[in-house]
Amino acid sequence: MRSFSGRDILSLKDFEREEFFRIFEIADELAPIARDRQNTDLLKDKTLVTAFYQPSTRTRLAHEAAMLRLGGAVTGFADAKMTRAGDFYQESIKDTVKMLEYYGDVLVMRHFQQGAPHEAAKWASIPVINAGDGWGEHPTQVLTDLYTILKEKGTLDGLTFLCVGDFRMRTMHSMAYAISQFDIKMIAVHPEDMSIQPEMMEDLQRYNLKWEEAGDVRDVIDQADVIYMEPVVQPDYTKSRQEATGDKGLTPPQFQVTRELLADKAKGDSIILHSLPRQDELPSDVDITRHSRYWEEAFNGVVMRMALLALILGATE
Amino acid sequence: MRSFSGRDILSLKDFEREEFFRIFEIADELAPIARDRQNTDLLKDKTLVTAFYQPSTRTRLAHEAAMLRLGGAVTGFADAKMTRAGDFYQESIKDTVKMLEYYGDVLVMRHFQQGAPHEAAKWASIPVINAGDGWGEHPTQVLTDLYTILKEKGTLDGLTFLCVGDFRMRTMHSMAYAISQFDIKMIAVHPEDMSIQPEMMEDLQRYNLKWEEAGDVRDVIDQADVIYMEPVVQPDYTKSRQEATGDKGLTPPQFQVTRELLADKAKGDSIILHSLPRQDELPSDVDITRHSRYWEEAFNGVVMRMALLALILGATE
Amino acid sequence: MRSFSGRDILSLKDFEREEFFRIFEIADELAPIARDRQNTDLLKDKTLVTAFYQPSTRTRLAHEAAMLRLGGAVTGFADAKMTRAGDFYQESIKDTVKMLEYYGDVLVMRHFQQGAPHEAAKWASIPVINAGDGWGEHPTQVLTDLYTILKEKGTLDGLTFLCVGDFRMRTMHSMAYAISQFDIKMIAVHPEDMSIQPEMMEDLQRYNLKWEEAGDVRDVIDQADVIYMEPVVQPDYTKSRQEATGDKGLTPPQFQVTRELLADKAKGDSIILHSLPRQDELPSDVDITRHSRYWEEAFNGVVMRMALLALILGATE
Repeated sequence: MRSFSGRDILSLKDFEREEFFRIFEIADELAPIARDRQNTDLLKDKTLVTAFYQPSTRTRLAHEAAMLRLGGAVTGFADAKMTRAGDFYQESIKDTVKMLEYYGDVLVMRHFQQGAPHEAAKWASIPVINAGDGWGEHPTQVLTDLYTILKEKGTLDGLTFLCVGDFRMRTMHSMAYAISQFDIKMIAVHPEDMSIQPEMMEDLQRYNLKWEEAGDVRDVIDQADVIYMEPVVQPDYTKSRQEATGDKGLTPPQFQVTRELLADKAKGDSIILHSLPRQDELPSDVDITRHSRYWEEAFNGVVMRMALLALILGATE
Repeated sequence: MRSFSGRDILSLKDFEREEFFRIFEIADELAPIARDRQNTDLLKDKTLVTAFYQPSTRTRLAHEAAMLRLGGAVTGFADAKMTRAGDFYQESIKDTVKMLEYYGDVLVMRHFQQGAPHEAAKWASIPVINAGDGWGEHPTQVLTDLYTILKEKGTLDGLTFLCVGDFRMRTMHSMAYAISQFDIKMIAVHPEDMSIQPEMMEDLQRYNLKWEEAGDVRDVIDQADVIYMEPVVQPDYTKSRQEATGDKGLTPPQFQVTRELLADKAKGDSIILHSLPRQDELPSDVDITRHSRYWEEAFNGVVMRMALLALILGATE
Repeated sequence: MRSFSGRDILSLKDFEREEFFRIFEIADELAPIARDRQNTDLLKDKTLVTAFYQPSTRTRLAHEAAMLRLGGAVTGFADAKMTRAGDFYQESIKDTVKMLEYYGDVLVMRHFQQGAPHEAAKWASIPVINAGDGWGEHPTQVLTDLYTILKEKGTLDGLTFLCVGDFRMRTMHSMAYAISQFDIKMIAVHPEDMSIQPEMMEDLQRYNLKWEEAGDVRDVIDQADVIYMEPVVQPDYTKSRQEATGDKGLTPPQFQVTRELLADKAKGDSIILHSLPRQDELPSDVDITRHSRYWEEAFNGVVMRMALLALILGATE
């Protein structure tokens, strides 16, 4: 297995089965630090640099919180408009990174442009973590999700994932690459105009994915061990649908998971993950059902970034 | 007395006399750290999470500075627009808090909506500090102010407070609740359309406040031991007044405290507090008079947050 | 030599030759910390306060990174709009500083208004570093640049500097004052409407600068030991020039340094500095020539701020 020390985390396409489990093992080791709410000294001589060119709460703060739990320092920006990188000069990724690399020891970048973190990694002498790149990938989110599933179900094999949402989104892409390493059947449910990009679908063929498509959550939810959700609500989509159908809800029922549907049809031990924020695809009265695991997922978001930072910075082997 | 460890600081309505003095005692103990400019280790394993949905300089930075003086770490956001909480999704307080609680050990929230920190506290497993909620309260500011008065006057009893400003503001509300615990007479001076909300006034009756109203600072300043000021300048108010009266000043003289007025009529040992920023209600030539204490108040703003953080996080008993 | 402990860094006009070398000596001592990527404990009990009223990436983050490398803490703001200092109240520098001084132990300020950091220093009881004030100065950038030149050329005497760019800019002003302390000949190349301000030029006469003007980089580049660049691209300037000449490039060739020009005419050991961001005045294919030193300059930006912070805060003698 390749060492994680000094490595970029850009895509889950690069990941092998044993590498997933190595990360999960370190996450298990570090989880008590987050659970007991005690910052430690593991990375006390290291600095994390954040470069967020798109709004983020969870991803940015989970990385920062993870770094602080490990005793490290944080600098960077949450708003590129307040930097010279976002103003009139429209500085190149190369020029920006050849500066940021001196400000710390690992760089976490979110960018509106697909491939920007890969370009950053090409120039940076420090490791780069992709915190979401346009329509590309979101590897640390999906690592968090798989870790959560492993903790809750005890395994990542022999499971059926029902994935509902906008399959053009980066989280779905990382998930598709990731599950190719496990014995997982994926059932994809999405609006017609929100299917996975053809070139990515083609690439995925190489992996022998067990992939099925369905048109309505209600037809297939009974098969799901894991219900993995993303919003399908996009301002334009919602408006045109409401004009066409007169329905005032944001999300059509075929992409919604309600308390009633869960009680009627879901397996008793099925779990729901959602990286949040949400709209009405997942009403808040689901929170108190036995299926919800998205708060655990939020907690694991910190644990996973602790594991990744510790591994990449060589603080753990 | 209830322990402060793990407790939310949402309103001064909850506070008893002995609790005020307990906080002031801890503030006295910790003040030398701020005065000597030496960060310490008291909270070195804890993280403060800031969630500011409204602009703030003093309140946010005073909390951050306090946490850093105690050796703790800070993460969070100063601008909700740069988060998913402030964008298209308009995430609920519950969903936001069920994430933020994993990023640290105490949450400081300012929100444009009255009651938002109370809603946050309902869901958070970590203590929540109200850093100002709409027209609601601003408890940590008023704790700072009372502590400043105690240090300067030696007591909080037998005093007359002249409070001048917009009584719809949250600082005035917290002050009204707080002084019910002391032998303080309050003289309120405010524009007609800036009186305290009727429902809050009604609630305050229960406390047997010594409360008087006056129309002009100049008529009552001679009675004041403490002159407590807030701006009455609001863009709309100022414009309509200037149109009506032709007066170019922002603040009408009945709500202004000038150097001349102080020299003419104020008690020699009366002190002026203002949480700042200010407009012309308090001209800058007052700064060098013996009455000004707002810089001491600014310093105490850090000391008070140190005391609150240390108490809430159980680092001091 | 005056001690640096507690001193403001506002202008290089104040600096004597031996003071430059004292700072460079400390920079040499601290450089290994940045190079080895190991945060230390030197300033572990101190807090840096940042107050940026104009966008900045490099200057703000280099100061923050430096403070973190020395084990110190950082608070402040990168965007004045998110503070009360930038909203309706338009708080005075005095009022802002009489608050900020309690939040930490050294203040770094960038301001759109020339002289604002000087005004801040008048009121602050803590040292103030000018991180760029309007058309005024940018002392820490030029200290970084001179240090880079010293490391690369081994001396600051007997050199010819070719300075190309907008001479109304603050970096050029600090450079002009600085080089008066060394045996440096300055050749200035700039658009006609971007010359140094007459009152500053007059002031500079007092220093017996060796100053020449030239109209085209191509005529004088063969004399240069150091090529020091700033953009001449300003939105208005570029538009009017393109309308007049039909040339689609942003920067006219007389202010550009290209790979071809360097190969044709530059001294083999001449070096190029640019504080970045850049436009087409310095095409990116120059990066791989033996002349480029702007990445070293970026690295030294952190080292220089480490030296200044350590000296000002009295952590090194």
